[in-house]
Amino acid sequence: MTTSREVRLKSRPVGMPTLDNFEVATVDTPAPGEGEVQVRNSWMSVDPYMRGRMMEAKSYAAPYEIGKAMWGGAVGEVVASNDPKFAVGDTVLSGMAWRELFNAPAGTLTKIDVSKIPPQAYLGVAGMPGLTAYVGLLKIAAMKEGETVFVSAASGAVGSVVCQIAKIKGGRVIGSAGGADKIAFLREIGCDAVIDYKAEENLTKALLREAPQGIDVYFENVGGAHMDAALFAANPFARFAICGMISQYNSAPKPVLNLGFTVSKKLRLEGFIVSDHADMQPAFMKDMSEWIGSGRIKWRETVDEGIENAAGAFLKLFSGDNFGKMLVKLS
Amino acid sequence: MTTSREVRLKSRPVGMPTLDNFEVATVDTPAPGEGEVQVRNSWMSVDPYMRGRMMEAKSYAAPYEIGKAMWGGAVGEVVASNDPKFAVGDTVLSGMAWRELFNAPAGTLTKIDVSKIPPQAYLGVAGMPGLTAYVGLLKIAAMKEGETVFVSAASGAVGSVVCQIAKIKGGRVIGSAGGADKIAFLREIGCDAVIDYKAEENLTKALLREAPQGIDVYFENVGGAHMDAALFAANPFARFAICGMISQYNSAPKPVLNLGFTVSKKLRLEGFIVSDHADMQPAFMKDMSEWIGSGRIKWRETVDEGIENAAGAFLKLFSGDNFGKMLVKLS
Repeated sequence: MTTSREVRLKSRPVGMPTLDNFEVATVDTPAPGEGEVQVRNSWMSVDPYMRGRMMEAKSYAAPYEIGKAMWGGAVGEVVASNDPKFAVGDTVLSGMAWRELFNAPAGTLTKIDVSKIPPQAYLGVAGMPGLTAYVGLLKIAAMKEGETVFVSAASGAVGSVVCQIAKIKGGRVIGSAGGADKIAFLREIGCDAVIDYKAEENLTKALLREAPQGIDVYFENVGGAHMDAALFAANPFARFAICGMISQYNSAPKPVLNLGFTVSKKLRLEGFIVSDHADMQPAFMKDMSEWIGSGRIKWRETVDEGIENAAGAFLKLFSGDNFGKMLVKLS
Repeated sequence: MTTSREVRLKSRPVGMPTLDNFEVATVDTPAPGEGEVQVRNSWMSVDPYMRGRMMEAKSYAAPYEIGKAMWGGAVGEVVASNDPKFAVGDTVLSGMAWRELFNAPAGTLTKIDVSKIPPQAYLGVAGMPGLTAYVGLLKIAAMKEGETVFVSAASGAVGSVVCQIAKIKGGRVIGSAGGADKIAFLREIGCDAVIDYKAEENLTKALLREAPQGIDVYFENVGGAHMDAALFAANPFARFAICGMISQYNSAPKPVLNLGFTVSKKLRLEGFIVSDHADMQPAFMKDMSEWIGSGRIKWRETVDEGIENAAGAFLKLFSGDNFGKMLVKLS
């Protein structure tokens, strides 16, 4: 029996979550059972989608339960194994974030190769956020060479990968983010034009200025005024990959006024959830490993330490205090 | 030289058009030139898309010009021909509405068979509105047997055909329209459930009541609250064919609040213009001729008479005073 800590949902947030919605509990973990593996997490991910899991509403996945540990992507090291496929010392990817230590059936774990890609990148560019960018840009929006691509929350874990894949695929990329540091990062990763949305009075005018020929693809992470600007600036037959709308995860929905353009410009707006597109995982890992190896994909991380700071790290996703991929180092 | 009348755009409407925006002019039409045909229009169509042509803004088609005759779908009879493919007495479809008489190059006219289908139906169920319904439901929304289909402006020229094709294809159909007469018509054409949007306080609640299992397809003709209700009631992977948003053609855009569901429910919203889908015309005419012949497609018309009343007929599209296909009989 080993003692460790986990983070539980204490109450369902109304509007912006606060630290009071979470609690850290100490638990005892027995030795792993038959076919189980014991893993000590070294990294865990906090992601915007987790806000949705904190609501009771039925959605594409079950909600977190009050008084129980939450879940999400984590990377850890095997400390005990009752399954021949895993050995002590292996690095594994799991859905068991928000815990320092856990037992899980071997079939729920994925061994990862950390010889060329650092372990925490499997929670970012080489993991779910990277695959989200890849699926959304190349499959949902079906971006083609020579097209103009607009990306909101462009310095984030997903957005920054979208920008870089769009450049690799021969696009012209306009990234929107808030603040001078993030804008500098967008230039560093190759954006052809940038919009500091915090410094603009009218986002539509800003986008028309940076994309005078219009946009062919919009990768939506924000909602509200960003969506309206993209609808206004869209070229005929533009495609919108709708990945998220972080501006309204903690508040009333932002009104969108320009949907009428979907008819006159024959636009396609398509929402997606990466878990429906697991078939693209092999192609993604092949491409991404190559791009990381050749230095064509860069990334930024914000790292907080200790499970007691995991809830605070999650809150930074909504205050914009994170930069790139938000991670918690656990051991 | 023969004298006839045409309707010109006198000024661009701001908000709801009024009769003052139009003027009837008397013109002289010479004998048809080489390769031309002279046609006396018997029927002309007024359609919601014409409101868009009255604006100066660049769109998918050129705007109407101030002081010049407008255009649109019309059916007429050949009265003189300088082309061997057309004989006096032939019934032809043209894009030369808003005129009593005109000369046109033979290549711009389509001879139509009125032995089984009445001529004015080529402006409705067997014409552009019918093809719009067919393309939107079967291609854009890719409706499948057993699915639940929600249709707004369901008693209109396009909507009523959508409802009936959806029934023919094995769907469950919920139609929305305003007023008891239109609701009765929706039941007559086979809608499984109906919503009188004028009698409902909350359209989302009304739709959830009539579609407790959710909707798989939404055929959008209205915008605003109808779109929000459809987004709320949508099942995962629902498809929205966005054909028009008549609620906002003459006013400020109606805000839409529920776009966040596009992500969690993985929805596809796609705008379309029928002229991009001419490849479906042969399949449409084959199916529609069969359906009309076997009595599976019904339609209603509202007919005003005389070119001097054409502008008034057009205005009825926005007041809801029309019922089914709005037509003007010219001779």
